[in-house]
Amino acid sequence: MKKVSILGSTGSIGKNALQVIDQLEDQLEVLVLTANKNYKLLIEQIKKYNPKYAVIGTEEGYKAIKKEFGNKIKLFCGTEGLKEIGKLDETDILLTAVMGSVGLEATIEAIKKGKRIALANKETMVAAGGVINKLLQKSKSEIIPVDSEHSAIFQALKSGRKKEVEKLIITASGGPFRNMKRSELENVTLEQALKHPNWSMGAKITIDSATMVNKGLEVIEAHYLFDMDYDKIDVVVHPESIIHSMVEFRDKSIIAQMGNPDMKLPIQYAFSYPERLENKLTKSLDFREVSKLTFEIPKKKLFKGLEYAYEAGKTGQSMPIVLNAANEIAVEKFMNREIKFLDIYEIIEKTMNKHNLVNVDNVAEILEVDKETREIARRILK
Amino acid sequence: MKKVSILGSTGSIGKNALQVIDQLEDQLEVLVLTANKNYKLLIEQIKKYNPKYAVIGTEEGYKAIKKEFGNKIKLFCGTEGLKEIGKLDETDILLTAVMGSVGLEATIEAIKKGKRIALANKETMVAAGGVINKLLQKSKSEIIPVDSEHSAIFQALKSGRKKEVEKLIITASGGPFRNMKRSELENVTLEQALKHPNWSMGAKITIDSATMVNKGLEVIEAHYLFDMDYDKIDVVVHPESIIHSMVEFRDKSIIAQMGNPDMKLPIQYAFSYPERLENKLTKSLDFREVSKLTFEIPKKKLFKGLEYAYEAGKTGQSMPIVLNAANEIAVEKFMNREIKFLDIYEIIEKTMNKHNLVNVDNVAEILEVDKETREIARRILK
Repeated sequence: MKKVSILGSTGSIGKNALQVIDQLEDQLEVLVLTANKNYKLLIEQIKKYNPKYAVIGTEEGYKAIKKEFGNKIKLFCGTEGLKEIGKLDETDILLTAVMGSVGLEATIEAIKKGKRIALANKETMVAAGGVINKLLQKSKSEIIPVDSEHSAIFQALKSGRKKEVEKLIITASGGPFRNMKRSELENVTLEQALKHPNWSMGAKITIDSATMVNKGLEVIEAHYLFDMDYDKIDVVVHPESIIHSMVEFRDKSIIAQMGNPDMKLPIQYAFSYPERLENKLTKSLDFREVSKLTFEIPKKKLFKGLEYAYEAGKTGQSMPIVLNAANEIAVEKFMNREIKFLDIYEIIEKTMNKHNLVNVDNVAEILEVDKETREIARRILK
Repeated sequence: MKKVSILGSTGSIGKNALQVIDQLEDQLEVLVLTANKNYKLLIEQIKKYNPKYAVIGTEEGYKAIKKEFGNKIKLFCGTEGLKEIGKLDETDILLTAVMGSVGLEATIEAIKKGKRIALANKETMVAAGGVINKLLQKSKSEIIPVDSEHSAIFQALKSGRKKEVEKLIITASGGPFRNMKRSELENVTLEQALKHPNWSMGAKITIDSATMVNKGLEVIEAHYLFDMDYDKIDVVVHPESIIHSMVEFRDKSIIAQMGNPDMKLPIQYAFSYPERLENKLTKSLDFREVSKLTFEIPKKKLFKGLEYAYEAGKTGQSMPIVLNAANEIAVEKFMNREIKFLDIYEIIEKTMNKHNLVNVDNVAEILEVDKETREIARRILK
C-alpha cells in the first residue's frame, strides 16, 4: 500500500484525488488530508478515510475538528502545519493541490525527503522552479505533473529522448471570452468569467483561464519541469480541450495525449506512474461524439496573460514570482468586484514594471518577493 | 555507417527512402537497390548510390543493366534474386517496399539472419504474420513498421506497456469516395479512384484506399505486429490524415502520433529507431494551417473492405492470404477496366466463400494458397 498525503483535499483536485484513491483502494491509502477553511467537508473526509494526520487553515476549523475527533487524529493548524506534513517519512506520494504559495515549503520538505510529488500547484514551479530543480538534482524525489497539459507532455515525452525534442505545444481552451473583441471584454462580469467551457475547476483558476494568465503560468511551469527554453514552448488554442498537449520531436513527429477532460486521469497517472492502471472513472473518448477538433492561434495582444508570462519567464530571477503574485491580487480584486476584467492586466503590467529584479535562492527570498509584490499590486488602481 | 538494402527502390516508398538516406548520408549507405520493371530509373539510382548489389525483375532490364555496369555490380534477376538479398550478412536494415508477396521470402531470410526489417509491405504480415511471429521469437531481428499508421502506433506504444493497452485506433482517410452513396459508387471510374485526397502513393494502394481494403489489411497487420486481439483494434475515419493513428491505454489516456502526411517521417524513424534524428525533408505541422481535424465512423456496409478484413482476420489460418490475393486480382481487373468498382467487393466475397480453410506453417504453404486463390478469383466475373 502506498500512502498518499493530500495537500488541499477539499478543493476540486483534492476531491477528484479521493475518487481515484477509492478506485485504487487496494493500492493506495490516505495518510494526510488538509483544508484551508472548509472544515465541515474535511470532517466528513476524515470520517471516511481515517487519515493519521490532518491540517486545517483556521482556528475555528481547528476547534471543530478537535471537538469531533479529539486525539484520534494528529491535527495541525495553518502553513506551519503543512510544512510539518512535508517532512513526514511515512508519505509515499505528496499531492500538492493547494492554491498559491502555501504549499511551497511542504513540497520542498518532501523533495528533501525523496518523496514523489504529484504536482497540481502551478505556483510551486513558477515561483520556485530554479530552487526546486537544484534540490531535485540532489534527491531521489521526482515530480509527476497533474495539470492536464503537463501530464500530457510528460506522457508524450516517453516516445523520444529529451535531446530529440523540437518543441512543446501546450493547448489552451482559450477560455469563455475567446471570441470577444476588446470592447466586449471591457464589461464582462465575474459570473461570465466563472463559466469555463470544458473544465470544472476552482474559481481562481477559472478566471486565470479567461485572462490566459493560467496558460502563461503553465508555460513557465513547463520551462522548469521539462528544462525547455521558452522559444521551444508554443501555445495553441484548442477550444474542445480534447488534446491536452503535444510534443514535437526533431524528426517532425508530434506525439499528443488526448482524452475527455477529466482530472482523474492525470491524477491517477501521477499516482501510478510508471504503470497505467484501469480507470473506470473517466469516460473513454468516443469518436462518434468528438467529430471535430479545432485549433487557433492565441490572440496575444488581447489576452495578454501569455505575453506577460513569456516576458517574466525570459527575464527570470524574481520576475515569475511577481507575475504570479500580482495576478493573485488582481484576480482577488476582480472577484471582490473592485476592478473590471481588463484591469487585471493593468495591475500585472504595472506591478511587473515597478519590480526591481533580484536573484532568489531559497524559500525565504521567494516569500519575501511574493509579499512585497502583493503590497505593490494592492496599491495599484486603488 | 549502417547498410540499407531497399527492396523496391523505384516505387514511391523506395524513392522516399533514398531521400532519407541522402539526408542521413553520414549514417546510412545503400547496399542493395531493386526494381521490378523500371530498369531505367534503377540504372540512374545505381549511378548515384553505387550499391554493391541490385535485383531487377525482367530479362530486358537484366540485359540493360549488365550492359551499363558489367561486373561493377552484383546483379540478380527476379524473385530468386530478392531471396538471395534477404540472406546477405552485410545488410543492417532491410526495407521491404515491394508490392505483393514477392518480398516475403527475402524478408523471412533477413529475419533468420537477425536483421532489422523496415516493413513497408502489408502483405508480409497479412499473409505470413503467424509464420513471421514464430521466427521473430527465435531471432534478434526486429520489425519496425513504415506504414504511417503502424509507425504511429509503434511510437504511441512507447508511452505505456503492452498489457496496459485498451485498444489501437487506426485512422483512415476514407478515400476519395467517402461521401458517395451506393448509387454513385456503382459508376466511379478508374481515374477517380486513383485520386487520393492526402497521400501520394502507388496505384494499387490508392485503389485499396478507395475500397478500404487497404485499411482492412492494416487491421490484420496491426493484429500480428502488435499481438493485439481484433476486438481491440478500431478504425476511425479522419479525412485530414494528420493524426496517423492512436493507442488508448486502460487509464483512458489516448496517445496519438501526428504530422503532415509524408512517408519520409516513418521511413526515417524505422531507420533511426530508437533514436529520432533531424528531419529537414518533412514540413513541421503548422496549426495556423491545420485549423480543423474531423472524425467519422467508417461506413462498413458500403465500403466493405473493413468487414472482410475483420472476418478474414478472426477466421485466421489461410483466410487473410485469401483476402489479400483475391483483392490483388480484383484490383488488377479494375485497373484493366474489366470490372466496375463495386465488383472488387464481389470478387473478394465470392473468393473468400469458395475457399477451404487450411493451416499455413511455412512460406511454401502460403504461396500455394496465394496461387490457388488467384486462380479462383480470376475465374469470378469472367
